[in-house]
Amino acid sequence: MKAPPVQELLLTPGPVSLPMSTKQVMLTDRAFGSESLRKDLKFARRYLLRLANAERFGTTIPLPGSGTNANEALIRTLVPAGGKLLIHSNGIYGDTLVAICRAMGTRHAVLRTSLLERPVVDHFRQALSEDAAITHVMMVHCETSSGLLNPIGDVAEICREFDKVFMIDAVATFGALSLDMRKLSCQAITISSNKCLEGPPGLAWVIAERALLDSSKGNARSLSLDLWDQNQHIERTECFRFTPPTHVVAAVAQALREHEREGGSVARLRRYRNNHRQLLKSMRELGFETLLPDELVAPILATFRIPHDPYYSFDRLYQAMKDDGFELYPGPMAVQRAFRIGCIGALGEEDIRRAVQALARAIAGMGVGNPGSSGTQAA
Amino acid sequence: MKAPPVQELLLTPGPVSLPMSTKQVMLTDRAFGSESLRKDLKFARRYLLRLANAERFGTTIPLPGSGTNANEALIRTLVPAGGKLLIHSNGIYGDTLVAICRAMGTRHAVLRTSLLERPVVDHFRQALSEDAAITHVMMVHCETSSGLLNPIGDVAEICREFDKVFMIDAVATFGALSLDMRKLSCQAITISSNKCLEGPPGLAWVIAERALLDSSKGNARSLSLDLWDQNQHIERTECFRFTPPTHVVAAVAQALREHEREGGSVARLRRYRNNHRQLLKSMRELGFETLLPDELVAPILATFRIPHDPYYSFDRLYQAMKDDGFELYPGPMAVQRAFRIGCIGALGEEDIRRAVQALARAIAGMGVGNPGSSGTQAA
Repeated sequence: MKAPPVQELLLTPGPVSLPMSTKQVMLTDRAFGSESLRKDLKFARRYLLRLANAERFGTTIPLPGSGTNANEALIRTLVPAGGKLLIHSNGIYGDTLVAICRAMGTRHAVLRTSLLERPVVDHFRQALSEDAAITHVMMVHCETSSGLLNPIGDVAEICREFDKVFMIDAVATFGALSLDMRKLSCQAITISSNKCLEGPPGLAWVIAERALLDSSKGNARSLSLDLWDQNQHIERTECFRFTPPTHVVAAVAQALREHEREGGSVARLRRYRNNHRQLLKSMRELGFETLLPDELVAPILATFRIPHDPYYSFDRLYQAMKDDGFELYPGPMAVQRAFRIGCIGALGEEDIRRAVQALARAIAGMGVGNPGSSGTQAA
Repeated sequence: MKAPPVQELLLTPGPVSLPMSTKQVMLTDRAFGSESLRKDLKFARRYLLRLANAERFGTTIPLPGSGTNANEALIRTLVPAGGKLLIHSNGIYGDTLVAICRAMGTRHAVLRTSLLERPVVDHFRQALSEDAAITHVMMVHCETSSGLLNPIGDVAEICREFDKVFMIDAVATFGALSLDMRKLSCQAITISSNKCLEGPPGLAWVIAERALLDSSKGNARSLSLDLWDQNQHIERTECFRFTPPTHVVAAVAQALREHEREGGSVARLRRYRNNHRQLLKSMRELGFETLLPDELVAPILATFRIPHDPYYSFDRLYQAMKDDGFELYPGPMAVQRAFRIGCIGALGEEDIRRAVQALARAIAGMGVGNPGSSGTQAA
C-alpha cells in the first residue's frame, strides 16, 4: 500500500484546488493598509469590474466571508424596506436566498421550478404580471447542487421589460462563464474568490450599479454587511473598514493575475469545458449516466446517478478515491442517489482522466458491475 | 542602499507577524467537510473553550470574517428584541460596538469614559441603577486604539450583583491576557484568530454560555450572522454551514497548536510582557514618552506621544522603518499626536531591540533631537 499523497486533488465545485503560485503568496504577512495590500485590492476591484463589463456604471465591493455572506449583504443593502424580491429557486443555492430573506424578514416571493429542467421563461413574466409589488428579481446563475445552468439572458430581458432590478448569484460561475452586466442590464451580482477564479475561499465580492448603491444608504440594518458603507470607505481610503483576511486578499489578487495570464474567462472556460467533456466521456465509458442532459448544464461539475447495485457505497467510493489522492464532495445534493464531480480549479484533462481511472478501480473494488447495465433510478 | 527585506516584521496590534510553520499549512488545499478540516475545527473549538475556562457551560462558535463581524453576530444573537445593551466605550473599538447597535436598531445606552484613565467602576453601578431596562453589558477588554486595559473583573462583579448578562470583546487580548469566563460569570466573549493567538485574520470566534445561546433562537434577523444556527449546525455536522475560509481554518488550528506548545496563554503573556518592557525601556532611552502610565495598559502595544519637533513626520518615520524591514500601524488612533508600536505576534525582545534601533536611525535621519527634550504635547 502506498503512502497517501500530501495534497489531494479536489474534485469538488468548491473549495477547489489552487495553483501553488497562488498559495505561496500566503507565506508573507501584510499589514493593514500596507501599500502592497492597497495595490492588490485596487487591482482586484478593477479586474473583476472589467470581467463583468461593468466599468462604466459599476463598483466592486469586497466582503470577507462566504458567497452566502455576500448574498445576504446584497439583499440587505439593495432591497429597501418597501421593496419585494422575487427569488427563483431550483435547488439548494436558490433556497439559501429564500432562507436569507426569511431570516431578515425581507418581503419576497419564490418562483420554484423543477430541479431537472430548464425553467420556463414565461413563468417569470407571469410572476411579475401577477404581483406588482415585486421590485427586484434574483436568481442563481448555475445551481451547483445539480449543475443546471439558469437562463439569465432571458430573465434579464423580462426584468428590463417590467423595469425590475435584476440581481444574479454568480458565485459558482464568475471567471469562467460569461456574465456581461452591461448587455444584461443586470444591476448587481455576487462573486466568490474561490470557484472559477481559483483563489482561496474567505473573500466574496459584489459588483453593483453605482446609481443603485448610492440610493441604498441606510438600508442594510447591519454594520458588517452594509455594502454602501464598505464601498464608500474603500473608495475613500483604499482599505477595508475592518481587518480583512490579509493572506487571502493577497492570494486572491494573485489568483486574478493567474486568471489574466491564462487568457481570462474565455481560456478558463475552454479548459473547464475540456475537463467536463473528458469527464462525461470517461464516466459514460464506465457506464455512468448523468442526472441532466448535457445541454442543460454548466461545465463546472457533472452529476451522476449512483449505480443501482447493492454493493455500491458512496462512503467506500469516497475513501478509495481519497486514498488515491482525489477528494470528492460529500456535501448537499439537490437530489438523492446522485454524486457530483467538479471540473474546476487547478486541474486539466489529464487529472480528470486519472481521477476516472481511480474511480473505475474503486467501483471494481466494491464488486459493482457496469453502473449503467444494472439499471439506474431517478431521484 | 540594501535591498528591502522580503518579509517585514509587523509592529502592529494586528494583523501580526505569524510563524512560518503556521503559514505553511496554507500551502495545502482542503475540501469542505474533509476529515482534516473537521479535526482542526473540533480541536480549535475545544482548545479555545479550555483557554476561557468555559468547558462546563460554554460552546465555541466560529464565524468567518473580522472581530467586528463576530461582535455584530454576538449582539444580534444574544440581545433579544426586548433587551437593552449598555456599552462601555473609551475609544474606537468601544465606539464600533455602538455603531453596530445603531446600524441594527438595537436598544442601547453608552457609558463613555476618558480615553486616558481607568474607568471608575462606580459609574457602571450608577448606570445600571438608573436604567432598569438594561439587560446586557458589553465592554472591550483592551481598547487597542490606546492600549488601555479595562477592568473586566470589577464590571463582572457589578453585573453579577445586578443580574445582567456580561459580554466582553476580547478580540485584542485573548490568548495572552487571562480571561476566565467561569470566575467572571461572563456569558459571552468574542475572539480573533489573529492578534494574540497568532493565526491569520479572516476567522473570528464567539464563546457563549450554552443556556444563553439556546434561548436565542430566532433573535438574529440574519442568516450569516446567526450564532445559534451556526452552532447547532456545527454541533450536528462538524462542518461550517457555508464554505469556510479553508486555508485560514487550518492555519488557525496550527496557530493554536503552536500556542499550546509555547506553554499556553501564560507563556505567551510572558513573552509579550518582555517585548513590552524592552520596548518601553528602549523608547524611553530615546526620550519618548508614553501616552498612558504603565499600570493602565495591556502589554500588547505601547502608545507614544510624537516628538514636538518641526522636523518630525510620521510618514517619513513609517517609510524609513519599512525600508529597514519593520511595518508600523498607520491606522486609527484614539488620540492625535501619538503613534503605536505593537508587541504581539511572532516576535521577541531581540526583534524589539532591532526595531527601536531602526526607529532611532529614522528619527536621527529626520534631524529630530531628543524627542522628550523639546517638550511633548498632550492630545
